[in-house]
Amino acid sequence: MTAPVRGPADLFAAAGNGDRAAKARLLSLVERGGEAAREVGRLAAPLAGDAYTIGLTGAPGSGKSTLTSALIAHLRSRGEEVAVLAVDPSSPFTGGAILGDRVRMQDHATDAGVFIRSMATRGHLGGLSLATPEAIRLLDALGHCWILVETVGVGQVEVEVAGKADTTVVVVNPGWGDSVQANKAGLMEVADVFVINKADRPGVQETRRDLQQMLELSGEGAEAANAGWQVPIIATVASSGESVDHLWDVILAHRDHAASTGVLERRRRYRLGEELREIVARRLEQRARDLCTGERWDALTDDVQSGALDPWSAADVMLGAVDA
Amino acid sequence: MTAPVRGPADLFAAAGNGDRAAKARLLSLVERGGEAAREVGRLAAPLAGDAYTIGLTGAPGSGKSTLTSALIAHLRSRGEEVAVLAVDPSSPFTGGAILGDRVRMQDHATDAGVFIRSMATRGHLGGLSLATPEAIRLLDALGHCWILVETVGVGQVEVEVAGKADTTVVVVNPGWGDSVQANKAGLMEVADVFVINKADRPGVQETRRDLQQMLELSGEGAEAANAGWQVPIIATVASSGESVDHLWDVILAHRDHAASTGVLERRRRYRLGEELREIVARRLEQRARDLCTGERWDALTDDVQSGALDPWSAADVMLGAVDA
Repeated sequence: MTAPVRGPADLFAAAGNGDRAAKARLLSLVERGGEAAREVGRLAAPLAGDAYTIGLTGAPGSGKSTLTSALIAHLRSRGEEVAVLAVDPSSPFTGGAILGDRVRMQDHATDAGVFIRSMATRGHLGGLSLATPEAIRLLDALGHCWILVETVGVGQVEVEVAGKADTTVVVVNPGWGDSVQANKAGLMEVADVFVINKADRPGVQETRRDLQQMLELSGEGAEAANAGWQVPIIATVASSGESVDHLWDVILAHRDHAASTGVLERRRRYRLGEELREIVARRLEQRARDLCTGERWDALTDDVQSGALDPWSAADVMLGAVDA
Repeated sequence: MTAPVRGPADLFAAAGNGDRAAKARLLSLVERGGEAAREVGRLAAPLAGDAYTIGLTGAPGSGKSTLTSALIAHLRSRGEEVAVLAVDPSSPFTGGAILGDRVRMQDHATDAGVFIRSMATRGHLGGLSLATPEAIRLLDALGHCWILVETVGVGQVEVEVAGKADTTVVVVNPGWGDSVQANKAGLMEVADVFVINKADRPGVQETRRDLQQMLELSGEGAEAANAGWQVPIIATVASSGESVDHLWDVILAHRDHAASTGVLERRRRYRLGEELREIVARRLEQRARDLCTGERWDALTDDVQSGALDPWSAADVMLGAVDA
């Protein structure tokens, strides 16, 4: 027996009543973008606004999925429910059963208080930068108070997405060069909390010192923007759960600080503005794609291919046509 | 004594005469975008078109930098010159002296026939997707025939950039799950050649079989698009140079196949079209940013924040204003 095809409104009502399959279907619609995703957004918007998002990011292999798993366990032990979005092609979460046992995902798979979803874009016009906030808004509207967003800390878009959480946790490992890499990847700018995971390995003190130095270099400007918040550096062993409770307390401390200083409100407003501008831009892009076809376009491409025209000048010509 | 400030035209002339510092300065201008980058593009466009680009991509730790280094050595042994763009925050190339010794970069650092540059965007409006083809065009115009582009095979933009080379080499390692990860990251679609690097470790046959199966699944459509090219799977040990000569022969075989079947021409044309559309889109995006300010914008953002309006509907309102 196959389930009847349900529209966004039916799915939304069902998901609100705890139907996990409906929730998954809605997220698939969001990933695909288009008219159905817009409809999901219209349904979600009036009900969203209460969730707190925590971004976890770091290089593949840093153990952020294990840390996410340990945070889930900690939250569950406190009786909290939690949703996880894994925006990370290297995440075991996105590998499902194949890699899942590596992080004892089975512990959570059958727990009704945990909802885990890997994110892909599947054709969404705005890619991950738009699909992710839309997915968060949906989970928020469906009553999730804690949303963990795991992103890989490598890649232009992924690091941007990581920086758009209410609290962003950057995960590194002990050892020479890891903090340098985090800095190069742009993770220093987005970190509200640093975690040195796998802290049972040698090199924790050196990594802590490296991070501290880099934080001091990025310095007063960053601190002022965060109303005096000094980025803590926490050593954890996610695989055994060591210091995961402490990490959670630090996350809550950051939340309280951000909320009481107005940083949280300001960030959310900024983030929303960015999302709106991105949508406007993507719509204009679609318009440009519609325009960038036909004989005139082909002739311009010929000119660029032959070297007679550089690409930006060719774009000027096309934009003249958009204006006309 | 400090060098006098030179404009793009002076730098371009100097770089054409072998001034490496001038070349590096031009690449910095490209990374920053803006008017100076446009000027560089205007200078480069008429002279570009002869270079062949080879993309190397894979997860951090797969050894693609070591493989790049081994390919450089092989090319040099054949008397060829080579340029490398490292679009990879996890690359030792981008770490300079700190991590460079890991891949014996010192072997190449003083070789006038090798030019290595790490790419960052430093504010370029179009990010890596536009800065990279512009940097390639510049190196091409300055006479580089072989350009290796190393990108990290994680991240939406980075995988796209990897897929835009004339020949794209995807690097994985032996072992359970690596091919699955490559598939999830979208690397299966961009691979012209697969390399199983670190092939002195166990699991090469299993990984080969996994890759073969996934290639068969993506199947006939992909093969037809590449005029019958069957993606080879090469086992290498980059650290000792094993099979790197064979890899180079396979890259040349792909080049010959692509050139003789018209695939190369078709791909380059497609790529150029994508670049032009991206430029048009970024210009429109800038226009959107200019528009998305002021009281009306603030009021719309308020409405979205309160849940009275969803983001896409707010964008509709703004786009109405664009049209009017």
